[in-house]
Amino acid sequence: MEKMKLKMLYADIKSDIEIIENELEQALNSSSHILNNASIYLLQGGGKRIRPVFVLLSAKFGDYNIERMKNIAVPLELIHMGSLVHDDVIDDSDMRRGRETVKSQYNNRVAMYTGNFIFGKALQYVTDIEDPRVHRILAETMVELVNGEVIQIEDKFRLDQHLKDYFRRIKRKTALLIESSCELGAVVSGADEKTIRHLKRYGYFVGMSFQIVDDILDFTATDKQLGKPAGSDLLQGNVTLPILLMKDDPMLAPYLEKVASHGLTEQERLEMLALVRKSTAIKEATKISNLYLQKALREVEALPNHPMKKKLRDIALYMGKRKS
Amino acid sequence: MEKMKLKMLYADIKSDIEIIENELEQALNSSSHILNNASIYLLQGGGKRIRPVFVLLSAKFGDYNIERMKNIAVPLELIHMGSLVHDDVIDDSDMRRGRETVKSQYNNRVAMYTGNFIFGKALQYVTDIEDPRVHRILAETMVELVNGEVIQIEDKFRLDQHLKDYFRRIKRKTALLIESSCELGAVVSGADEKTIRHLKRYGYFVGMSFQIVDDILDFTATDKQLGKPAGSDLLQGNVTLPILLMKDDPMLAPYLEKVASHGLTEQERLEMLALVRKSTAIKEATKISNLYLQKALREVEALPNHPMKKKLRDIALYMGKRKS
Repeated sequence: MEKMKLKMLYADIKSDIEIIENELEQALNSSSHILNNASIYLLQGGGKRIRPVFVLLSAKFGDYNIERMKNIAVPLELIHMGSLVHDDVIDDSDMRRGRETVKSQYNNRVAMYTGNFIFGKALQYVTDIEDPRVHRILAETMVELVNGEVIQIEDKFRLDQHLKDYFRRIKRKTALLIESSCELGAVVSGADEKTIRHLKRYGYFVGMSFQIVDDILDFTATDKQLGKPAGSDLLQGNVTLPILLMKDDPMLAPYLEKVASHGLTEQERLEMLALVRKSTAIKEATKISNLYLQKALREVEALPNHPMKKKLRDIALYMGKRKS
Repeated sequence: MEKMKLKMLYADIKSDIEIIENELEQALNSSSHILNNASIYLLQGGGKRIRPVFVLLSAKFGDYNIERMKNIAVPLELIHMGSLVHDDVIDDSDMRRGRETVKSQYNNRVAMYTGNFIFGKALQYVTDIEDPRVHRILAETMVELVNGEVIQIEDKFRLDQHLKDYFRRIKRKTALLIESSCELGAVVSGADEKTIRHLKRYGYFVGMSFQIVDDILDFTATDKQLGKPAGSDLLQGNVTLPILLMKDDPMLAPYLEKVASHGLTEQERLEMLALVRKSTAIKEATKISNLYLQKALREVEALPNHPMKKKLRDIALYMGKRKS
């Protein structure tokens, strides 16, 4: 049902998203057997393609041309895919979206080079765009994405961190790439400066809200919905918003200590989940996500009149309220 | 003495190479403690900076301006540095140039992200260049570099490979980046099409010769000269030209089998080295390297008259004849 809802939201750009999907397949075609297998595997894994969706919807505010837009929508999705492959190396993840990761199917080295190959292909796509603003935004986004991933390593298992450390992380990990998708969709389609600015900020706020919801769902959704054990973030040492909001809870303390020292047993994981789920932290985290959502909606209001405004609103609400 | 010779060759562009060195330091400055440490460590490791040297020498054939040239010389060296860090993950190398590698000092994950960070910084530098040819050449080079690294994984420990597999590997691993350095130096300085073409081919041939010499030295130089145990390439499963030229030697066969199964003891490594050193393979490999060198020199002859022609010749000869 969730999936149907998303499809309805995509309806206007459905055929263009299919063009992007085909381009992604072509982009990941390689003469290397290993790279090909890893890439096909990644493509079959699917994903919501939300970055291309934001590119295309934002481009509707300018001079929309799918042939031109695909040269920016494809690399943004590729950067996202490449960073997921590298993330699985960092997090030592064996499962993502209910399937084995590339790192788990092959090994760290193959995962590293599959990521590199995908990044390289992303670069090739944008070479056809001459506007130096595009290259500047993309390069900056990639550097900050990597910075975010390194900060994530540095912050792992650190319980003495503040909310601002968390926000700094998710900004780089998620919000920036969605921000850049909206901004670049507008830039490449030739939208005016004011429209670019509002779409960029819309993307940033939606991205923050999206990642907070993701971090909440990691505790509240079922293993089946997540395609991996609930609580995986914490088990991997990633201290997310719900935990930061209740880290002084004396009931939680023994579990946090165990996570950092030798990990949780299955029984302890379930106890920890029950504790987090019944705490006020989930409600508080949802409130913070909603604040970002409201900010995103305010940016939509500031945009010039356009039928796509409703879509941007609906997608933000969908992403902010989703249950899986 | 070798080092002094190289310095003499660099004399004309000495102060400009120092500018590049400073820029590299600034480029690798990061707010992350781990990234900073890894980067400083890499910079201190030195290296010959041959890619920037080729960029600058090639640029002398156009309208030379160090401020503009550094925007292409710096990213080319950064791409080289980033790929070395990732290579050490692939090869599981603990030593390079007589020092511990980033991978060994930290771990695979940090090495992966240090590489990513360096690649990202490289991209930031070129955003100031508007010529789309530059972005196209760089993106193509990066994709082929990654392809080469994956081929290297696929070809590891494979004794049924042909010379063309080896040439395909070293082209992507080494020659392409030197080719691109020469080509981009010429393109960015606005040299004419014919000059660009000859410099590009010069770079390719020098690169091939350079890597073959490197692969020979891995057997013929001392551990001290190499900064790692001689024969490391083979021990890591990289089948290089000297081995390909003598792989049917019945004396060598037992060592090759052991390399692929459970590795060589120290005693066996020394026996294997002695065998390779006294074989005709080293001489034959040197002959092949010299053929590439001759081709490089012919490209220099075809260039318009310029005092830098002698430098290009000298550097090619230096790289093709070096002893460490």
